[in-house]
This record gives sequence, C-alpha cells and structure tokens, in this order.
Amino acid sequence: MGLREDADRIIHQAIEAVLPDQAMIRALKDLEMPHGRLYVVALGKAAWQMAKTAEQELHGKLEKGVVITKYGYAKGELDGFRIFEAGHPVPDDNSFAATRYAVEMAENLREEDLVLLLVSGGGSSLFEIPICKEESLQETTRQLLACGADITEINVIRKRISAVKGGKFARMCAPAKVYSIVLSDIIGSPLDMIASGPAYPDSSTSAMAWEIVKKYDLKLPEDVLALLDEETPKQCDNVTTVVTGSVEELCRAAAGCCAKLGYEPMVLTSGLNCIAREAGSFLAAIAREHRNSKKSLAFLAGGETVVQLTGKGMGGRNQELALSAAEGICGLKNVAIFSVGSDGTDGPTDAAGGYVDGDTAKLLEQQGIKISEVLQKNDSYHALEVSHGLIKTGPTGTNVNDVACVLLRREE
Amino acid sequence: MGLREDADRIIHQAIEAVLPDQAMIRALKDLEMPHGRLYVVALGKAAWQMAKTAEQELHGKLEKGVVITKYGYAKGELDGFRIFEAGHPVPDDNSFAATRYAVEMAENLREEDLVLLLVSGGGSSLFEIPICKEESLQETTRQLLACGADITEINVIRKRISAVKGGKFARMCAPAKVYSIVLSDIIGSPLDMIASGPAYPDSSTSAMAWEIVKKYDLKLPEDVLALLDEETPKQCDNVTTVVTGSVEELCRAAAGCCAKLGYEPMVLTSGLNCIAREAGSFLAAIAREHRNSKKSLAFLAGGETVVQLTGKGMGGRNQELALSAAEGICGLKNVAIFSVGSDGTDGPTDAAGGYVDGDTAKLLEQQGIKISEVLQKNDSYHALEVSHGLIKTGPTGTNVNDVACVLLRREE
Repeated sequence: MGLREDADRIIHQAIEAVLPDQAMIRALKDLEMPHGRLYVVALGKAAWQMAKTAEQELHGKLEKGVVITKYGYAKGELDGFRIFEAGHPVPDDNSFAATRYAVEMAENLREEDLVLLLVSGGGSSLFEIPICKEESLQETTRQLLACGADITEINVIRKRISAVKGGKFARMCAPAKVYSIVLSDIIGSPLDMIASGPAYPDSSTSAMAWEIVKKYDLKLPEDVLALLDEETPKQCDNVTTVVTGSVEELCRAAAGCCAKLGYEPMVLTSGLNCIAREAGSFLAAIAREHRNSKKSLAFLAGGETVVQLTGKGMGGRNQELALSAAEGICGLKNVAIFSVGSDGTDGPTDAAGGYVDGDTAKLLEQQGIKISEVLQKNDSYHALEVSHGLIKTGPTGTNVNDVACVLLRREE
Repeated sequence: MGLREDADRIIHQAIEAVLPDQAMIRALKDLEMPHGRLYVVALGKAAWQMAKTAEQELHGKLEKGVVITKYGYAKGELDGFRIFEAGHPVPDDNSFAATRYAVEMAENLREEDLVLLLVSGGGSSLFEIPICKEESLQETTRQLLACGADITEINVIRKRISAVKGGKFARMCAPAKVYSIVLSDIIGSPLDMIASGPAYPDSSTSAMAWEIVKKYDLKLPEDVLALLDEETPKQCDNVTTVVTGSVEELCRAAAGCCAKLGYEPMVLTSGLNCIAREAGSFLAAIAREHRNSKKSLAFLAGGETVVQLTGKGMGGRNQELALSAAEGICGLKNVAIFSVGSDGTDGPTDAAGGYVDGDTAKLLEQQGIKISEVLQKNDSYHALEVSHGLIKTGPTGTNVNDVACVLLRREE
C-alpha cells in the first residue's frame, strides 16, 4: 500500500470515530443503569442526533426525555422525547420554555434516579432561564456581543445571570446522579465552556465577572450587576462527565489507525492553534529529522490552525498547512504529510484538506507552479489539485476540528 | 531542583558539547592512526582552534599540517603547522597560495598515509585554486554575489571552476585515506555545502549549473562557461566524514542532559526554520497536551527560527520564541519552555535566549505588560527581563544555531 492509501484510510477511520452516533455509542458503554428512573436531557446543535442514538441504544429504558436544539435541527419525533427548537445564538421564548420543561423534569428526583445529559455546542443560548429580568438578559447579551469580549468572557457573565448554567442544572438534579456526555468541538475541551457547562463546576469567579465589566466599561442593568456577586458551584459531586467526539478523540482514532497500519504513532498535540503555514513548516522539520528512522513513525497534531490572508485564492487551513510542508520534505522518500478537517469542508472549498509527499514540490515546479507564490495568494486548492493532493470526503456531519499527520514509512 | 535550574543546566551542558575543542576531541576518538604518515589540513573560520586541538590530541604523530583561516583568526604558531590567513568572503592571493601549499602536501601520498581534514564554515573562499583565469573567477564571484543567487546556487558554480571544491581535493589525496571532521553551523548539515565540500561527493550537476546561469541571466567569461560541463566527483571512496559541533549534536547533548535530570527526552527536529512566534505557540500546544504525563518529559527542537519584524523593540529569535509560548502554558504547573542560541547572543542583546513557565504570563499581566503587544513591538527582551526569563551565558565561541525545549516535570 502507498502512503496516500494509508493517509486516506487514517482519515476515514478518524472521522468515523468522531461522528456523533459513534461517539455516543462509545460514551454510553460506561453508563451504569440506575435502579430508579432514567431521564434524558439533550441540548445543543447535535442534540437530536445524540438523543436518537440514546433512544436506540437504551431500548425503552427511558422514563422521559427532552431535546432542545436549534431551529431546523430536529429531524422528526423520537419515542419518549419532547422536542423543542429554539433561538441561537440569542435565546428566545422557546429557549426559556424548553429549559423550564427540563428543569421541571429535574426537580423532585430521587437518589436512585439518573439524568443522562447530552451536551453539544450551541447549548449556551438554547438552554437558558435567566434569573434576571428578561429585558435585562437581552440588554446584557447585546452589550457583550457588541463590546468585543471573547466567548470565554461572555460566558463568565452569562453563567451568573442564569438558573442552569455553570453547574447549576446539575445542582437541581441532586440527589439524582447526572451522567453527562459532552460532544466537544472546542479546542482543549474546556468543559465549563461547552453550552456554558450546565453540569460542570465553574472555574470562573465573581471577581472575574467584575473585571470584565470594568475592562469593557459595560453599563449592565442593576439586577444583573447584583447577580455578579453570587458564586457558581465549584463542585458537582453527583455528576460523571464523559467527553466524546472531541479533537482529542479524533487524534486518538487517527493514532490508532496509524498503529494498525504499522506506524508507531505519537500525538504531539491536540491543541494546535498557530499559523497554518508555520505548522506545515514545523511538521516538515520533524519529518526531516526522523526520515531515517528504523521504525515507521506517525506524528499527529490536532487542533485548529489559522490562515493568514495575504491573497484572494482558494483554499483552507488544512490545504495551506499541507502545501507549506511540501518544500520541507522535497525529495524525501516514504514521507507524507496531510491535514484534514473533520467536517469535510476546509475553507470555502469542496476539499476536506491536503496531502503532500516528497514528490509534490518537484511535480509542482515542473508545472511552473511556485509554492511560495501560491501560499502568498492563499491558493493552495489549485496547487494541490495539480499534485493530486486534494483530500475529499464530502460533508461528514461532525465538526471536532482538524488533524494533521506526518507519515514516515520505513523502506522494507 | 526547580525547572529554571534544570533549564540552566541543560543549556550549559548542551553548549559545552558543541564547543569546537570538545566537538573535535569527540570526533577524534574514532580516528584510526595510519601505518603511514599523518597530515592535517585545517580550513575555515575555526581552523586554527581545530588544528590546535588536533596538535594536542595527536601528540607529535603529525608529519605536517596547514591551517588556512580568515585574517585575524589565527592565534599563534602551532607545532608542525604552516599557518595562512586569507581572504573571506572573497578569495585572494593568500587563499590561492595556502591552497597550493595544501595541494602539494596532498599529492604523491601513499595508500598507508592519512589526511586529517578539518573543515569549518567560511572555507569556500579560503580554500580555493581556480581552474579558470584569475580575473574570470573574480568576475564570476562578482556576478554571483550581485545577482541575488542564494549560497547553494553560488556554490554549484564555484565547485565547477575550482580545483579543490566538490570532492576534488579528496580525489587528489587518493590513494591516501582522508578523515574529514566537519564542524557544522549550517542547518541540516549539507556536507557538500560546508566549505563547498572539498572531500564530499557533489550532489549538484552540470545541468543545475546551466540552469542558474539561465535563471539569473549571467554573462560569465568563456573559460568559466566551458568548465560548467565538467562533472564533479559523485563518489569519494577514500573519505570518512564525521560531522561534529552541529545543531544535531547540540540537540543530542541537550537531550542527554535532560535524561540525566530524569526527563524522557524526544528530539522533535534539529531543522526548525519557521517563524519564531509560531514555533513558540506549537511548543506550548505540545506542552498542554502532555501536561498530565505520568513521566517527566522533554521535547527538543533545534534549528534557526525567523523573526518577523513588526516593531523596533529589543529581542532575538530565541527570546521571541520563548515569550510566545508563555500564554499557551499560562497557569500550568511544572511546565517550562526555553530557547537559546549556542553562540550566547540572541539578536542584538546580551541575552542568549529566553525562559518561560506557567507563571510568566500572569506575572507580566500583573505588571501591566501585554505579551501580544510586546511581540508586536519585537520587544521580548524587556518583558523577559521583568519575568526573570532572560538566559545569559556570555559569548560561547561556537555557533551551531539554537535549541528550544519543553520541560514537563512530573509532580512527585
């Protein structure tokens, strides 16, 4: 088998492992059935799909369930579930109604009961009951979005004016246990950040909230300001959390497939966040170092790199990373580097990523294509098209960021 | 011991290992004394120092030797050596006279004789006998320096108009053996490049030489053009080459010291050549990934990164790399990242590099220093001064590029 075939197989298996249903099935394996009743609360953009898998896997053991997802994201009825579609990214009346339904379900539970909480991205606005006035919530959200605060900062404030965020929903479920399955598409999986962490101890503090108000000179409503001082739960003893479908799992699955193909895999990082071109250069430097290794090796780096826009060409961060690595491994045999986005879409293109090997740079040169100029124009797509280096998977239905890989195949 | 103490020890030992005399002593260990006579030819900027070490280590076993170095680089007489100082970067009459002396020594050797060839950077202009007319050489050199050709391209031409470059000196020494010790300060150690490879098979071809002429539209003298067609040696069977004092050795020595201190070391690359800030970000991402490792780990990356000039501050590529890593490891315990130049001088500063750990970003924030702004101003020196992160070694007398390191100390 050639390196390209190896790459395609690794990509296929890694993405499959992080599809919501596969990820759910894996996460459900460790679920211990309660002696009491089993409830399901699913929230976020993947809520319907996660609930569907739960419904299939739990075969009627379910007492009752609720799905809260974005408008247009519910795909039909699910046995035993009440299904809500609600506002995103700004909460609306449906968000509040749906969340009240879930809260009513969570109240008056017994110790032997269990809440299976299925969390995916987008939950922050879908799962919400404000403890301030409704107009105060809207005004606060408006100011936070306008002032340039980042998502971490926004959530610090949000958690304090919410009845369910920052671990508060889990506190409501007590004394019942909560088994929380988190489908993560945020780098490094900060669990108190995904959907504002309804069942995860909050790492932010009142002091941090006040700093944000000061930093952006926010003029928040009085009732909101009063809430900033109330601390969020710093412990959630009734909760077990399983993260699944994360970029870590993408890397782990890619590494597992590498191992099956005879490579000794090493996951360098799953939190790559530097400039795509430079990541390509770094990975090429790693490839050069280990080109004479006695074993077949695979180095993996997951995350989300950044494209520096210097031109108006066509491409994406994965294609740009791969193409940037081509010159650094030029002429090397049995070396390949690829990078792929798990969602199957890299930038505004129909490719999921790019693949290069020791022949790529020469091949492009022969065609009169200068890699440095292509990168300057951000036109990696067309260069990789020429070198047959485009990776196309089609849309995958998951989005847990990217994985890049250096393959070094020992000559047999 | 703290992480900073570990870092300082690793830096100290790594640099010591690549000092010319230490590197020479190590390389001489594998030298088998000849049954016949032993000659020494030392050329390049470190020639005198290498010859001095050879003189000391070989205790009078030397038949005759020659040192060819840059003006001002010879530090006195050496027993048994004729010492020449000559032109650099443009060869002059002294270069030719010195080289003729070496060539006369190399001719009429017997099979049982040995030439110890000591090669360091700068040898290209110091070790030269043109086989074209002298004015043709000067004109060719002038055009090559003016046209914007890079050093690799320049050497492709140089080798063809030289009697000694591109493996030709080794061919003269035959049937005697040549033991070539190369002190490398070029990334990736392309052995046919250092001093234009007098004893190394030439990887360039006549076709490449003609391409360069075409590319830069050079108007070379007729006698030079005639020489472009003559192929250089593609094999040097009588030569053993040992590379020492290279960035690979710097990394290896750093890794060895890490191991002694209880870290499991991994050399990622010794050919890093990406942007300093992005290398820092990448290394921080690796640190985050492995922060909970059960073993103490060290990741090493050698090479020469590039600083993007966006401001007028004070710093160097190593300081900038280290400071860029600070935010990515903010708050992590038992994690440190440092980067240091082996010559002891990082940029136009009195520091050799920079050190950061999980406290650095917080500490700077408390002092009102924003890392992103500091990097924008290329002012890493002053920020690291505040965080006590400057590494100062003083000038070291070697220059084999840099090594960066991630230290992850397992909590005991």
